Amino acid sequence: MNMNDIIYKKREGGKLAKEEIDYFVKGYTEGKIPDYQMSALLMAIFFQKMDQEETYQLTNAMKLSGDVVNLSQIQGIKVDKHSTGGVGDKTTLIVAPIAAACGVPIAKMSGRGLGFTGGTVDKMEAIPGFQTTIEAEKFINLVNKTGISVIGQTAHIAPADKKIYALRDVTSTVDNMSLISASIMSKKLASGSDAIVLDVKCGDGAFMQTFEDACELAQWMVDLGNADGKKTIAVVTDMNQPLGKAVGNSLEVIEAIETLKGNGPEDITELSLTLAGIMIFAGGKAVSCEEGYQMAEKVLQNGEALEKLIQFIEGQGGDSKVVNDYSLFPQYTYKQDIISEQDGYVDKIAARIIGLASQHAGAGRATKEDQIDLSAGIYLHKKVGDKVIKGEVLATVYGTDSEKVAHSVEEAEKAFAFSAAEPEKLLLIKKIIL
Amino acid sequence: MNMNDIIYKKREGGKLAKEEIDYFVKGYTEGKIPDYQMSALLMAIFFQKMDQEETYQLTNAMKLSGDVVNLSQIQGIKVDKHSTGGVGDKTTLIVAPIAAACGVPIAKMSGRGLGFTGGTVDKMEAIPGFQTTIEAEKFINLVNKTGISVIGQTAHIAPADKKIYALRDVTSTVDNMSLISASIMSKKLASGSDAIVLDVKCGDGAFMQTFEDACELAQWMVDLGNADGKKTIAVVTDMNQPLGKAVGNSLEVIEAIETLKGNGPEDITELSLTLAGIMIFAGGKAVSCEEGYQMAEKVLQNGEALEKLIQFIEGQGGDSKVVNDYSLFPQYTYKQDIISEQDGYVDKIAARIIGLASQHAGAGRATKEDQIDLSAGIYLHKKVGDKVIKGEVLATVYGTDSEKVAHSVEEAEKAFAFSAAEPEKLLLIKKIIL
Repeated sequence: MNMNDIIYKKREGGKLAKEEIDYFVKGYTEGKIPDYQMSALLMAIFFQKMDQEETYQLTNAMKLSGDVVNLSQIQGIKVDKHSTGGVGDKTTLIVAPIAAACGVPIAKMSGRGLGFTGGTVDKMEAIPGFQTTIEAEKFINLVNKTGISVIGQTAHIAPADKKIYALRDVTSTVDNMSLISASIMSKKLASGSDAIVLDVKCGDGAFMQTFEDACELAQWMVDLGNADGKKTIAVVTDMNQPLGKAVGNSLEVIEAIETLKGNGPEDITELSLTLAGIMIFAGGKAVSCEEGYQMAEKVLQNGEALEKLIQFIEGQGGDSKVVNDYSLFPQYTYKQDIISEQDGYVDKIAARIIGLASQHAGAGRATKEDQIDLSAGIYLHKKVGDKVIKGEVLATVYGTDSEKVAHSVEEAEKAFAFSAAEPEKLLLIKKIIL
Repeated sequence: MNMNDIIYKKREGGKLAKEEIDYFVKGYTEGKIPDYQMSALLMAIFFQKMDQEETYQLTNAMKLSGDVVNLSQIQGIKVDKHSTGGVGDKTTLIVAPIAAACGVPIAKMSGRGLGFTGGTVDKMEAIPGFQTTIEAEKFINLVNKTGISVIGQTAHIAPADKKIYALRDVTSTVDNMSLISASIMSKKLASGSDAIVLDVKCGDGAFMQTFEDACELAQWMVDLGNADGKKTIAVVTDMNQPLGKAVGNSLEVIEAIETLKGNGPEDITELSLTLAGIMIFAGGKAVSCEEGYQMAEKVLQNGEALEKLIQFIEGQGGDSKVVNDYSLFPQYTYKQDIISEQDGYVDKIAARIIGLASQHAGAGRATKEDQIDLSAGIYLHKKVGDKVIKGEVLATVYGTDSEKVAHSVEEAEKAFAFSAAEPEKLLLIKKIIL
């Protein structure tokens, strides 16, 4: 087999065979196929696409390029949840304890954030003492004991994806449905869960800008998961404004705790209950998503979900007193308000701009080597549809670097747009793909 | 400027600006832009194409990536001739002396052969003592004195093309009109002539398989040359069977000499006179291609062209006695005939197969490092349209390695196809693009 022939075949619109896909994924991962041939193939795939079978073979080859986690020592149907990345998305911190409280074992691998979207591992580390780098044995024991554990993703999960993604990023070959879905699903299918719930974001703050694209991506991933024998369900949700009110690591953990106490913003509560309901259904603890939703609502109201969060924190070495004392979180030293200069209604809050402004305040990384400021972020006092009066505070930027905070304020201001009339409410949960 | 943005722009069908094209050609030649970004861009260009202006800017940037030869010390309109590469194409050895004998200064850079097509430099070196590696000053003096000199192409002519072509070759991004024409014309426009005559081959033994593609490529190159202020004329010619009867270095030089003596095969004589006529017109020594043709015919008949070849050989240190004594050429030690197993007419002689068989007999290189056997090659006793009787010799394979010769015979046999009825004559000169 010859890489140049494979490139030519795809360039001419041919369908790649399993053997050909296995050949280039293995060869590239092992460094036997050079970057310049892989990038030419990726560009050919961008133009000629891959069909469902090719995409499945690509996903499978990437999955098998590294370790495939064995969670058979954990009883029950393990359910994973994945978000395609949004601004202010702290739902994992809420839905995982809810689902665990309903008897669904949560054995989750999570990543760190990069760019303007956050990562669950970073958020968890805002809790003093919390460890995400734990041994596999401890991880399994924790799930068997408390029903929940989150571990930082290791380098041995789908190394082919890591290498291919880095190349796509610098060769304008990111935005292709097959490549995106294979990238996400190869990691999910290698991480050992029995069922997968996907939260596919759409809107200006998400990778998929349009509803149609988000639905297409969701369908590709659902098909890939089901083809691999894992029950996979996707929810397409709005990311035209940040999720909830808090953006930034400590701020988001606090909002998650508040949500588990029943005081969360309406959007984050609604989305969390929906996702948890689907996880409970996928985990075989409810006969439908609707019954799952009701079970989720119950454990949220009776405090069992909050109690599960406490067990989760303690299990991984964290100080669970944070749940009642937010002063234990890393503290900001500077804050600056964004003031409305007009009366009216909030018409838009560009999620991407808020995400970038939060990153620039110190909450996110531009490169993998950057250190993040766990106290930094943006709190939105107003959201889309809210009435505002001139002089009211729209948002507050927090951090430990006064210059970064001031710079972030200048950026974040530009995210807001206003209207004289009350705007139509954004529909948060747009579609469920079973 | 950013290479990833340039790739994205082209991928989305955008038109690249001069500054962007200059940026990536310069950056890639200097090693600042990595292969993997260049190959992704080349694949995007394959799919989205480049328009005439982009192609011109690409050609110009590649031309300016190295030396641009200054031939101003040579009086008169210097005319270059380029063939896109064929099997048995020894026309340069014939048309250059003819045009020079008609007063057109020939100051030509030529390359070596690779794969199944030969190179003029290799052919010239079949003449004992002939030097193609000569100083620029000597080259210019020779043209001024005798009207003709051929020099081996240096590495400093369009190094961008050399590097980009090597990458295209291994990433299935060769066959795009803009990339092919920019590759050829960047070198031609850098080599200092005032006018360019292009012989664009089409057929199974050529890069362009169809007449339509060959015409398109010819038109692109004519436009590029004229846009650069050089009078450029292209001839589209047939390459469905080898040109002439001789394939291989010594064999071809002998056939060229025979042609200049008036004893050449009909096809090679006709094409040489046509090309020489165009060169004479382009060089301002005739008012039309037709008048040029008549002048060419005259110097062929009266021996002035052969005399010019002798001056040319002597000028570059070669032994001009070869013209009358073919035993001075490198001699074969083995030869083997290919015998017809049937009666009928020769219907096809696949040029590509003959070219490969000649290469495998020792006449060509598979890699740049290979040594060639100057005596090796194939002589076709029969050509398309000729009547054959069972037992007649179709062709003879020559060389110094009996195994290679035997292997070549096996291959070359497969090039022949026969028909009971006399086949239609192949039209050699298909189109002239002024």
